[in-house]
Amino acid sequence: MSYKIAVLAGDGIGPEIVAQARNVLDAIAEKFNHQFEYTEALIGASAIDVHGTPYPDETHKLCMNSDAVLFGAIGDPKYDNDPNAKVRPEQGLLAMRQKLGLYANLRPLEPFKALLHKSPLKTELLEGVDFLCIRELTGGIYFGRPQGRSEDGKTAYDTCVYTAEEVERIVRLGFEFAGKRRKKLTIVDKANVLATSRLWREIAQKLEPEYPEIEVEYMFVDNAAMQIITWPKRFDVMVTENMFGDILTDEASVISGSLGMLPSASIGVHTSIFEPIHGSYPQAAGKNIANPCATVLSAAMMLDHAFGLKQESALVRLAVEKSIEANFVTEDLAEGGKAFSTTEVGDWLVNFIK
Amino acid sequence: MSYKIAVLAGDGIGPEIVAQARNVLDAIAEKFNHQFEYTEALIGASAIDVHGTPYPDETHKLCMNSDAVLFGAIGDPKYDNDPNAKVRPEQGLLAMRQKLGLYANLRPLEPFKALLHKSPLKTELLEGVDFLCIRELTGGIYFGRPQGRSEDGKTAYDTCVYTAEEVERIVRLGFEFAGKRRKKLTIVDKANVLATSRLWREIAQKLEPEYPEIEVEYMFVDNAAMQIITWPKRFDVMVTENMFGDILTDEASVISGSLGMLPSASIGVHTSIFEPIHGSYPQAAGKNIANPCATVLSAAMMLDHAFGLKQESALVRLAVEKSIEANFVTEDLAEGGKAFSTTEVGDWLVNFIK
Ligand SMILES: CC(C)[C@H](C(=O)O)[C@@H](O)C(=O)O
Ligand SMILES: CC(C)[C@H](C(=O)O)[C@@H](O)C(=O)O
Repeated sequence: MSYKIAVLAGDGIGPEIVAQARNVLDAIAEKFNHQFEYTEALIGASAIDVHGTPYPDETHKLCMNSDAVLFGAIGDPKYDNDPNAKVRPEQGLLAMRQKLGLYANLRPLEPFKALLHKSPLKTELLEGVDFLCIRELTGGIYFGRPQGRSEDGKTAYDTCVYTAEEVERIVRLGFEFAGKRRKKLTIVDKANVLATSRLWREIAQKLEPEYPEIEVEYMFVDNAAMQIITWPKRFDVMVTENMFGDILTDEASVISGSLGMLPSASIGVHTSIFEPIHGSYPQAAGKNIANPCATVLSAAMMLDHAFGLKQESALVRLAVEKSIEANFVTEDLAEGGKAFSTTEVGDWLVNFIK
Repeated sequence: MSYKIAVLAGDGIGPEIVAQARNVLDAIAEKFNHQFEYTEALIGASAIDVHGTPYPDETHKLCMNSDAVLFGAIGDPKYDNDPNAKVRPEQGLLAMRQKLGLYANLRPLEPFKALLHKSPLKTELLEGVDFLCIRELTGGIYFGRPQGRSEDGKTAYDTCVYTAEEVERIVRLGFEFAGKRRKKLTIVDKANVLATSRLWREIAQKLEPEYPEIEVEYMFVDNAAMQIITWPKRFDVMVTENMFGDILTDEASVISGSLGMLPSASIGVHTSIFEPIHGSYPQAAGKNIANPCATVLSAAMMLDHAFGLKQESALVRLAVEKSIEANFVTEDLAEGGKAFSTTEVGDWLVNFIK
């Protein structure tokens, strides 16, 4: 089979880590006799530099015409600390989410055994953690209108909006994933305060009878923020709205202790994108020291979710796991041992797969 | 001096823990020659049972006419899992916040050395943590209008609103507290997405020159959720808006590992209230097993913040610290050692003070 992959490497370390993920995909293609056709396009600060906009039309067209998007990272220090700048890389991200209809951000959290000691949490809390955070990504207070200032500039407002359709789509996805996993779904909201949360709860309750095998629990967001730390293995699939998801998925990501290992997928109406959860890490750009594993694991998610290539996906994950066990790691994980370069780790993975 | 204290014991274990805090206050009164005059009133589920409303007018009047409010906890299982119930205990809480103008919730986090091992975090991350979370409590998406549903019921919306005055009041409080502490202020927002956050940042930046000795940093809420876990000692004073504060203060509270020890204060325009951060713990009600220390420490905050009695406040905190070191603790902290009852711990504290 042949698959069209849009490659948006982005800023900072983006190009270096994406290059390794492509090499890994090529090794898979060769071994399993697939064809991956890559086309590159600009996004983020590098797109602003060239086109004056962080998500150019041609990038959007490419994404629309691809079977999946492999994404690096965006962000450049020159745009930081200036939330009022006219054009910012993050706007590219938000525009892309909206235009591609990327309604669900998936973040699996399944720490590698060999890395449990890197967690800020005590090891016994991490053992057996295997949970999937699903964050709604195109609704809520991120996109609700009106948003702005009163005429005298002295009052600011944002609007959180959800329609029944938006909620049903993402909650269903949660039920479906839970069905393929340990059959437990946690809906996180703030139904004791917010009207939007009450709609979420109402719809989830309406869907429950369609999925009798799934155990559903409803949890307030403040409680969820505690449970992620005190008892992470209680979660199987968690679904929540955009803003809560922004906070909770980042909170959940650090308990693994190795941000450089965490992949994500954003499921789209048109096409889906796959990207590491870490940022563009500008200090490391061009130094060949960044950890490519999160991007490689994102490519593994692409194989599984976008192309249905489960065996191929599992082999990529196995390769990463073995590289960790072999201590063939970049400096973020080296802990005084030998640190290998981005390309060396990529080559190791490619060789393992072959 | 004589002080009028409104006592709202509330539901569940509320009455038991508040009784111990009163005993401790009485011991302080005797030793330092003060007079504390207590008047009790109903709030929460127990107020619904009697008056049909969780924050009756007479309770409000009492609070308005008191120098401070000592609060237990509210919440009853019969109202849980029914976010659409007409009358709920939490409404009493929100009504009280609004009517008393409780605009700032203060949560100091300074774990006791003898309890560091109880934290879900590795001990080395906890050592030296001493941080104060300040949450805005009467604005934002909790109280913004419109809130509700479209006519067909298919769209729900909430509104987050902040005025310049509301923001300035709380940010100033942050600057003031930072000035009395380690002179570092972290403003947590989501200025890359929200108009209200951009107002927060604008106002904080405007105030900066008035407090040249304070180092100010701006942090996105998703990043703050990570830093609380990975590097809590970086914080001195953190200020944030209502919803973010709900999530982050609860997240921060569990890293101490002993919720039963954490006090809080809500600073009001009219009068201030002092309460443990833990809930009403209905399973333990009436059993004389609940940990009274969080409430006792809340009374210590009252002595300091509401009455300016610093020496008295410090003595209460010392008593609690010594009780922990002496292992004279309730069952939540006993770990296989002897567990003392609520009243026994209260008596120990009273004797220590005398
Ligand atoms: C950059 C920012 C707008 C974005 C978000 O809040 O969604 C980021 O934090 C993320 O989680 O991808
Ligand atoms: C009960 C609820 C409305 C309340 C809040 O969200 O403010 C609680 O979580 C708190 O933090 O005091």
